[in-house]
Amino acid sequence: MRHTAPLNAHLMGIDTHEEPIVFMRSDCAICRAEGFTANTRLQVQAGERSLIATLNIVSNELLAEGLIGFSDSAWEFLQLADRQPVRVRHAPLVRSLGALRKKIYGHALNALEISAIIRDISGRQYSDIEIASFLTASAAGHLSAAEVTAMTRAMVGSGNQLQWPGAERIFDKHCIGGLPGNRTTPIVISIGSAAGLMIPKTSSRAITSPAGTADTMEVLTEVDLPLEKLREVVEHTGACLAAGGKVGLSPVDDLLIRIERALDLDSPGQLVASVLSKKIAAGSNHILIDMPVGPTAKLRSREEACELAGVFHQVAGALGIQLRCVITDGAQAIGNGIGPVEEARDVLAVLRNRADAPPDLAERSLFLAANLLSMASGEALDSTLPQAREILYSGLAWQQFRRICEAQGGLKTLGQAPHQSCLQAQRSGKLRSMDNRRLAQLAKLAGAPSSPLAGLRLHVKTGDSVIPGQPLATLFADTPGELAYARDYYHQNRDLFDIEATS
Amino acid sequence: MRHTAPLNAHLMGIDTHEEPIVFMRSDCAICRAEGFTANTRLQVQAGERSLIATLNIVSNELLAEGLIGFSDSAWEFLQLADRQPVRVRHAPLVRSLGALRKKIYGHALNALEISAIIRDISGRQYSDIEIASFLTASAAGHLSAAEVTAMTRAMVGSGNQLQWPGAERIFDKHCIGGLPGNRTTPIVISIGSAAGLMIPKTSSRAITSPAGTADTMEVLTEVDLPLEKLREVVEHTGACLAAGGKVGLSPVDDLLIRIERALDLDSPGQLVASVLSKKIAAGSNHILIDMPVGPTAKLRSREEACELAGVFHQVAGALGIQLRCVITDGAQAIGNGIGPVEEARDVLAVLRNRADAPPDLAERSLFLAANLLSMASGEALDSTLPQAREILYSGLAWQQFRRICEAQGGLKTLGQAPHQSCLQAQRSGKLRSMDNRRLAQLAKLAGAPSSPLAGLRLHVKTGDSVIPGQPLATLFADTPGELAYARDYYHQNRDLFDIEATS
Repeated sequence: MRHTAPLNAHLMGIDTHEEPIVFMRSDCAICRAEGFTANTRLQVQAGERSLIATLNIVSNELLAEGLIGFSDSAWEFLQLADRQPVRVRHAPLVRSLGALRKKIYGHALNALEISAIIRDISGRQYSDIEIASFLTASAAGHLSAAEVTAMTRAMVGSGNQLQWPGAERIFDKHCIGGLPGNRTTPIVISIGSAAGLMIPKTSSRAITSPAGTADTMEVLTEVDLPLEKLREVVEHTGACLAAGGKVGLSPVDDLLIRIERALDLDSPGQLVASVLSKKIAAGSNHILIDMPVGPTAKLRSREEACELAGVFHQVAGALGIQLRCVITDGAQAIGNGIGPVEEARDVLAVLRNRADAPPDLAERSLFLAANLLSMASGEALDSTLPQAREILYSGLAWQQFRRICEAQGGLKTLGQAPHQSCLQAQRSGKLRSMDNRRLAQLAKLAGAPSSPLAGLRLHVKTGDSVIPGQPLATLFADTPGELAYARDYYHQNRDLFDIEATS
Repeated sequence: MRHTAPLNAHLMGIDTHEEPIVFMRSDCAICRAEGFTANTRLQVQAGERSLIATLNIVSNELLAEGLIGFSDSAWEFLQLADRQPVRVRHAPLVRSLGALRKKIYGHALNALEISAIIRDISGRQYSDIEIASFLTASAAGHLSAAEVTAMTRAMVGSGNQLQWPGAERIFDKHCIGGLPGNRTTPIVISIGSAAGLMIPKTSSRAITSPAGTADTMEVLTEVDLPLEKLREVVEHTGACLAAGGKVGLSPVDDLLIRIERALDLDSPGQLVASVLSKKIAAGSNHILIDMPVGPTAKLRSREEACELAGVFHQVAGALGIQLRCVITDGAQAIGNGIGPVEEARDVLAVLRNRADAPPDLAERSLFLAANLLSMASGEALDSTLPQAREILYSGLAWQQFRRICEAQGGLKTLGQAPHQSCLQAQRSGKLRSMDNRRLAQLAKLAGAPSSPLAGLRLHVKTGDSVIPGQPLATLFADTPGELAYARDYYHQNRDLFDIEATS
């Protein structure tokens, strides 16, 4: 079918997140002639670029005649200019949807079929509901290791790929997550790269948590490095601590993760493809996976962790990647701070060997760094752990961290939140546990991570005895409203600190 | 979590189809305080009504301060008035999503779980991607007959239910579809109700075809009958030929079908629940299913039809419904007209026993009517077929059809399209077959069904010998542009008429 007469592009000023939407007037002659109605899938051609978008029909006040409106993400993907002529037509059949149907019917897909699906998702040919259908059909262990391997490869191919000429072994680490405050990455990377490992580390910003590593690093230095700058930093210092966003490694992963989270689907296959594709695209071939297990962490049991580790090992093996999974204690929050700045304080305290440095964060970082060193040297932990300690306690790690930050744009000074409030214990007893999820929620209500100064600082650890009036934590916020809002939540959720009355 | 301060409702003038969308300004204090971003799912409370909607963030020019914008369908569902105060908060956990996850993991759901899912979809608690996930997880035979039965029951409960006191047996018919021009319903219902059967028939408008029964009936009489009027018509005449839209029978079906079609999922379980829920809600307990089988019809093989019939029988049995499935020839379009008015011409020609009445439409209608009569009397077709013929040929069916139309608001006169064009054969030979799908496409490009006069009229049938220049069909359109557009398509698709050269 031919394309219609051109319309002129107009940025609507509507952020629909990643789903591309186009807007046309109800009286538009093209809609009538072509039979376009609300929800029709349209192929939009703008110069050399094209995508498939969903149509919304708007009243005449919102759009002048002869114009076609675009949502923010559609505008950006097509790299449109105001009034640029574009053509629309009924979306042609997306051929990889045939493979999706095959998967729905329970058949295995071959590498070509999987790569066609990933390419079409990446090229904005799939609607959100089609992505949702694909994720549903491939959730719950419905993907074989061969399929996850093919998917990982296809995802690597969806974006930029870094190469490190001259370097044979490239390292990386990843944490499965779910533990507030578990900000080991800056410390582990500093120790590892101080020992000579090359670690081009990119991290994500928080999506559902009060801080991601990128959010924490952003209060310490520049993290939005263009690809060339990132390469320079790694070549100069052996490592980087950058945000993944601008670098474009496995960008299709962001499209998948958004729908996966909205559906609250935890699929081991998707998780493994997501993690490994980012690392492989960064050029890494030696990857350490930290798997905290605990009742309120992402992995609830050792069995769950072992099953996931099994998929990781199979896929990494097929892709020629050295991989080590370590199961760690995920019983409670790590360090004392939650939120970008408060977590950065803990990181700095550990790196600078300060007396108030949280020992759990230091120990966990040393354990992970020792594992990286062990993967590199082949030596056992009882020789690499002392080596990691030496690098941290001698100040070498701190020196290396500063080198990385200087290379990325300079070390920043941490600020202080203008509003704070103390959360006190109401009765005496022993602190049995803390609910990680509700602690994270509390920090988010106070404004983290979009207010980097917002969050909280814990003053107690599991096992501590407390008395009435004793400060359990301090809340930080940018505004009195947010502070009040977080306090309200705490008053309705005092049991997030589980205090056992002592007799 | 508490609700925030109220915002005032504003109708954006954006038709997003069924997906409820709310629009808030990027500088809105509530967004910032609550951490709402584009794509956040929000619960909206407006007086006693509430729904869950997806948030889009808009620039300040599109929405004044203190306002919250609504898409057309969200506005309608909440029955909002301009500037009505509404409250929003993060959507609470939708509990039936737990059951959805169970289904994704391959477990059977019980009736309570299924009814919770259907209730939440019906109550606009599910996003489109969640509905897509549910349909994917229950496609491809993943629903047992017990699950389909539970779903049918829950769907019946989602809307209005008709009762017919005093009448024991209520009849209905349904066609699985895919054959253009197959407009037997008005004829079958006229014959059946003339014979004394009660048939409260509601039909849908076309979604992807050039005409639905409701579109065809709409050019002949009023079809958008409110519930009370429909009841009156049926009580007065024994039948009706109404559109389903306003009556609200199994309305959740429309939400499911929209996503199913967008995903091009053909799931027997969903199909059976969809059809039976509408009929049962209309009070029917004797249902005839017409299953045309042909290479370009919806059902491609007898095996496929038999499998579907099996699900129909199991579920109908569990629900105490008498059901008969008949497999009919779906090799080619039925009658000569395609499009609302052209199909209505064929229907009238058959009912009025005109010499130019298409015999295939008459024979098929008689066969289906005889099956209805046979279900009623228990007699075999060789005695009910003559009975049906007698009713049609004596003029009783035509008299009954006019009674129904008069009761619904009067019989209308058919118009004539202002533009028409003849499609001629290019070579001589025998017409081997016609492609139903592309014929339907041709009629749609000419403007059907939104222009009721648009469509086409066939002048040949499979098996006919044709010579160059012989008219194969006439195209009808409201505008020269649509006519040209359809002609273009024909010139690129001449092989939709498969003419075998005769030697």
